[in-house]
Amino acid sequence: MNRIALALDLGGTNLRLAAVGEDGTIYSRSRAETPKGSSGNDVIDLIIHLAENCRSGLEDPSAVCAIAAAVPATINIDEGILNKLPNLRCLEGVPLRDILSNRLGVDAVLENDATAAAIGENWLGASRDVDTSICVTLGTGVGGGLMINGKPYRGKDGTAGEVGHICVEPDGHPCGCGSRGCVEQYASATAVIRMAREAGLDVSTSSDVYNWAKRGNEEAVDVFTAMGTYLGIGLAGLVNVLNPEMIVIGGGVSAAWELFAGDVRREVDERSFPEPAKRVKIVGAELGDDAGILGAARAVFALISK
Amino acid sequence: MNRIALALDLGGTNLRLAAVGEDGTIYSRSRAETPKGSSGNDVIDLIIHLAENCRSGLEDPSAVCAIAAAVPATINIDEGILNKLPNLRCLEGVPLRDILSNRLGVDAVLENDATAAAIGENWLGASRDVDTSICVTLGTGVGGGLMINGKPYRGKDGTAGEVGHICVEPDGHPCGCGSRGCVEQYASATAVIRMAREAGLDVSTSSDVYNWAKRGNEEAVDVFTAMGTYLGIGLAGLVNVLNPEMIVIGGGVSAAWELFAGDVRREVDERSFPEPAKRVKIVGAELGDDAGILGAARAVFALISK
Repeated sequence: MNRIALALDLGGTNLRLAAVGEDGTIYSRSRAETPKGSSGNDVIDLIIHLAENCRSGLEDPSAVCAIAAAVPATINIDEGILNKLPNLRCLEGVPLRDILSNRLGVDAVLENDATAAAIGENWLGASRDVDTSICVTLGTGVGGGLMINGKPYRGKDGTAGEVGHICVEPDGHPCGCGSRGCVEQYASATAVIRMAREAGLDVSTSSDVYNWAKRGNEEAVDVFTAMGTYLGIGLAGLVNVLNPEMIVIGGGVSAAWELFAGDVRREVDERSFPEPAKRVKIVGAELGDDAGILGAARAVFALISK
Repeated sequence: MNRIALALDLGGTNLRLAAVGEDGTIYSRSRAETPKGSSGNDVIDLIIHLAENCRSGLEDPSAVCAIAAAVPATINIDEGILNKLPNLRCLEGVPLRDILSNRLGVDAVLENDATAAAIGENWLGASRDVDTSICVTLGTGVGGGLMINGKPYRGKDGTAGEVGHICVEPDGHPCGCGSRGCVEQYASATAVIRMAREAGLDVSTSSDVYNWAKRGNEEAVDVFTAMGTYLGIGLAGLVNVLNPEMIVIGGGVSAAWELFAGDVRREVDERSFPEPAKRVKIVGAELGDDAGILGAARAVFALISK
């Protein structure tokens, strides 16, 4: 029998849930806007509601053996508690793993969303068949997940993978993390908008900047050049330190990949040692919004198969 | 019976060899200056001579079961060939593993010297009992080795760990690697001398700069501040990406650790996320010159015990 996991992508904007088979088939989905300014209990109730929806839509609801949540948070893995969620503070300190497990009557696992995306791309996306890869997600912020020797690498406290907070400009733009000149300050959607406005463009989204650049606007083109250059500088250091086989670029801003791929590649080639630079493939993600859901499902299947 | 490995540290200045027991006891040593401008064969003959010396000095020469070489090189691990040795070009392309094995009649293993140091410190030095650590060697250049989940991490081509070639100043000082503004350009002995001279000091070694700084010379103190600051910026990124338990600072320049430890720590604390920053211990190495020899021995014992 094909076992099924419910997989949740707990985003700051949307809650997305899917029922995923062991082979990656998505059998049903449900989604809702993430409630703003509400209590943690309201968010949890909504998650349970979506999960029950998703489960009852299945031919055989009893095939659901687990729920996995990809969360934009650092996680206390041992205890299953959400530590820091800058975009969903109402859930900080919540023992979400046990709540999900108890209310749905199945095993539950929490996974950092960027790590989940890395697992998903490694399972069914751009980095399948690759042992060691880095997945970078360019969204509102810049996230990252590492796969080392075929396994997600989470670090001692589960906080590893914060590629967006490598410093690439010692006295650069202040970052929400408390540092300055982080990759995130040049390669996130937020940064693209800021840099475009600094260049005098009247834009409200990173898509606006993309559209200007596609129409040949020089300032907009320069924004993506700066973005790719700084992202490349950060990644070149990782190529020297980790000698990975692949770097996968995902997240919303990766839709503009064609506009900055060349700059990323140039910096990696110029700044990394020849052998690891030649080795590393730098490619766009393949799973889009589903990377986190699929990765979370994969993580929970791996755990319950042990 | 306690098995013994011969362990070689193939430095650009000295060839050092020791007979090491499975518990890390060093039973005998031999050393010679690395021949300058000679052929690869001359260097190899000298290594064999030192190895035979070391072996014959033992109570039971037949206890020697292997030889391990820590080399300042990238290595083709599968083939046992030295790829790039910037400081010993006469050995580039040499199949040193098989040569050592054939001429000494025991198993042989090659290991990158910085990785060997990381293994050594993890076995008997500062990072023992630590699962995930980064060992940084501050010498003529800046090297690095990673221990991840208790094992040396070498990357896809064995080139991983090049902590010295993380960029910390996008348009900084040109680096021998072809990039600009690498950690090595601010935190190596070479860099310390350069920065001191730029500040008007008449120095010929990094020890001179150290001595000036100890006597309170402001320019010399500033050199170590800059060194620690840039090293800290590079390490802060690694703390965010790898969430390690410990960073071990070794190599000749680490003798001046007290002069820049505070700057390293400050940058890591300011620039890394609170959780991994709090986690990571940053400490001086404990094994000095023997880190590479002990690590190489450990690597070969691990291999032949499989």
